[in-house]
Amino acid sequence: MTNNDSTLIVEECFPVLTVTLNRPKVANAMNLQMVTELMQIMEKTETEQYRILVIQGCDGNFCAGGDIKDMQATKGDAKALTELNRAFGLMIEKANKLPAVVICLLEGAVLGGGFGLACVSDVAIATNNTKFALPETSLGIIPAQIAPFVVERIGLTQARHLALIGNRIDGEQALRLGLVHQLVNNTEALTKQLTSTIASVLKCAPNANKTTKALLHQVSKQPMSELLDQAAVDFASAVAGEGREGAAAFMQKRSPNWA
Amino acid sequence: MTNNDSTLIVEECFPVLTVTLNRPKVANAMNLQMVTELMQIMEKTETEQYRILVIQGCDGNFCAGGDIKDMQATKGDAKALTELNRAFGLMIEKANKLPAVVICLLEGAVLGGGFGLACVSDVAIATNNTKFALPETSLGIIPAQIAPFVVERIGLTQARHLALIGNRIDGEQALRLGLVHQLVNNTEALTKQLTSTIASVLKCAPNANKTTKALLHQVSKQPMSELLDQAAVDFASAVAGEGREGAAAFMQKRSPNWA
Amino acid sequence: MTNNDSTLIVEECFPVLTVTLNRPKVANAMNLQMVTELMQIMEKTETEQYRILVIQGCDGNFCAGGDIKDMQATKGDAKALTELNRAFGLMIEKANKLPAVVICLLEGAVLGGGFGLACVSDVAIATNNTKFALPETSLGIIPAQIAPFVVERIGLTQARHLALIGNRIDGEQALRLGLVHQLVNNTEALTKQLTSTIASVLKCAPNANKTTKALLHQVSKQPMSELLDQAAVDFASAVAGEGREGAAAFMQKRSPNWA
Repeated sequence: MTNNDSTLIVEECFPVLTVTLNRPKVANAMNLQMVTELMQIMEKTETEQYRILVIQGCDGNFCAGGDIKDMQATKGDAKALTELNRAFGLMIEKANKLPAVVICLLEGAVLGGGFGLACVSDVAIATNNTKFALPETSLGIIPAQIAPFVVERIGLTQARHLALIGNRIDGEQALRLGLVHQLVNNTEALTKQLTSTIASVLKCAPNANKTTKALLHQVSKQPMSELLDQAAVDFASAVAGEGREGAAAFMQKRSPNWA
Repeated sequence: MTNNDSTLIVEECFPVLTVTLNRPKVANAMNLQMVTELMQIMEKTETEQYRILVIQGCDGNFCAGGDIKDMQATKGDAKALTELNRAFGLMIEKANKLPAVVICLLEGAVLGGGFGLACVSDVAIATNNTKFALPETSLGIIPAQIAPFVVERIGLTQARHLALIGNRIDGEQALRLGLVHQLVNNTEALTKQLTSTIASVLKCAPNANKTTKALLHQVSKQPMSELLDQAAVDFASAVAGEGREGAAAFMQKRSPNWA
Repeated sequence: MTNNDSTLIVEECFPVLTVTLNRPKVANAMNLQMVTELMQIMEKTETEQYRILVIQGCDGNFCAGGDIKDMQATKGDAKALTELNRAFGLMIEKANKLPAVVICLLEGAVLGGGFGLACVSDVAIATNNTKFALPETSLGIIPAQIAPFVVERIGLTQARHLALIGNRIDGEQALRLGLVHQLVNNTEALTKQLTSTIASVLKCAPNANKTTKALLHQVSKQPMSELLDQAAVDFASAVAGEGREGAAAFMQKRSPNWA
């Protein structure tokens, strides 16, 4: 799938698909092409039922945000700018609810759009010296497709502080804010942590994880009692499906067939 | 109230009711009988206006989750499984909004359904070496009646990580995630911390606490301005009620009559 | 604007307006006059487009809560009490969504209504030994106009613990709960931290900050996709407005004209 003109390096090792953002000259800043290619990759993980999507950046940076050249190319046309911006948000929305478990490996620059993408991962692993920031308003623009996911990720309290001040935070602070889940010392440790995280995810049943992720996203979107009614039905289906193998494996003290 | 066939040990020391989950052979795993008995106990706290409900487990464990034998007894009947699962959720929902202050003492295993119950306490006190996890998807099933309360407790960000990876966390991590409020070193310290917490709660007026708890639960369920309009009416009622005694006690430098 | 009868000291240093709560004999407890004057000051920041509103207390305390004398003056009239209470909430609501960036400097007593006001700041800076608490229910009343903002600030989990137990927390704990953003050792350090925070905010474009703050407040109030559609339109407007100067300044390696 990788080709010379692509903004991504894709490694397929079923059921794990790894994407490396690959625009090293601009710290992997995201242009419309990258957004489009990420959408295609995510569709591939759905169609082919990948269980894990790993997203990382090349050359020591995750992603420095949106590429300013795409914006300039619109020559200030409001409609074109709106569509360009929204395209990025559609990609983030898709990543947020992707059936696969999304793991982001964060190091170097995690700015603007890169920050937004990190905010929708199921597992975010960062090095201590990663630099997180929302620099948009210091450039006269707004974190339009990003800020809402920052609020969902770390709450209004921390989001308003970060977005209205534009300050940088490091991995330690990102862990404290709940922006990332796991912290390591360097790139090497990042790889080790990824390996053990992938092993943990693969012990979990694929459909059970998919259903659980969808359930988590529904909380506060509908009344709790309704949600729990539906969840009970889904529970019975899970028991009749992967749950049989899960119970058998548990009784026989062996690994289930999905692990 | 305690009898030989009960899954619970109940100590009535008005206005504090203490329930001990008492199925030591299965680390206090919750079966339908326990769920039913917990519902009855909670109804009792409402009818008799207990101010505090303490929930703990016997023999060094809080609760290891749902009892697999109930599930097997359904012989895969979808309707029976759905109802069994939903019954547990109804109990959690009731505990979440119980007028009494709910205090959970957490040690040993706090897994699956035990994790869910901990998530709806008003005060959660844990020992350092408590083991928290959502192991459902690793067994091929889903944390159907639990995951939504985990999201309400610690947010989507941490919930997706815990639920989709199935990793264990200890008391220190649970404190950092906001899953528990207070951390102690061992079972002895747990008891001391409970005593001081009960003393603090009993200094608060019973109706004021009940009204405040209901108010907290309404946030984001209706527009903020509407909620505050109603809260102002409730405020005036509180002033005319317990507030008189509160003000008199404050002026006379004595304890109020509810303390 | 300051006069002898005012409850506030106001310093106008455009685009920064600083308000000092000035009722030292009652640890800056908030009466109806103070609420009314705060409303007027906030309207002034809107009309005159101040970019930052700093709120602090005189004499080493932020604010000890509502003034009990106003309540007594109502002589228990339910309508008067309801209106008095609601007036405070209207002020908090206005502060929460004020277009200007609201910075609270917290030291000494931050109780009840003072706690509520702190909860709607965009930046909260506290000293280590600040005392935060919601003592209402221990007085037989309820944190009616406050508790909902506490839930929005630190989540239901921490809010139920604080409101139903009435315990005090210090600056370190407030930082851990996400109630405050920045922690310093003493009053002198508070002033330094304020200076650097103001400098950071002023680097951010005024309209971009205003639009971003409004956007953050809309999250979870409407479906995410709708919100992002509107945000994309706002993005295009920002690019055509302050974004031109922002891009020019970036290219020319100079400060933008708003900084």
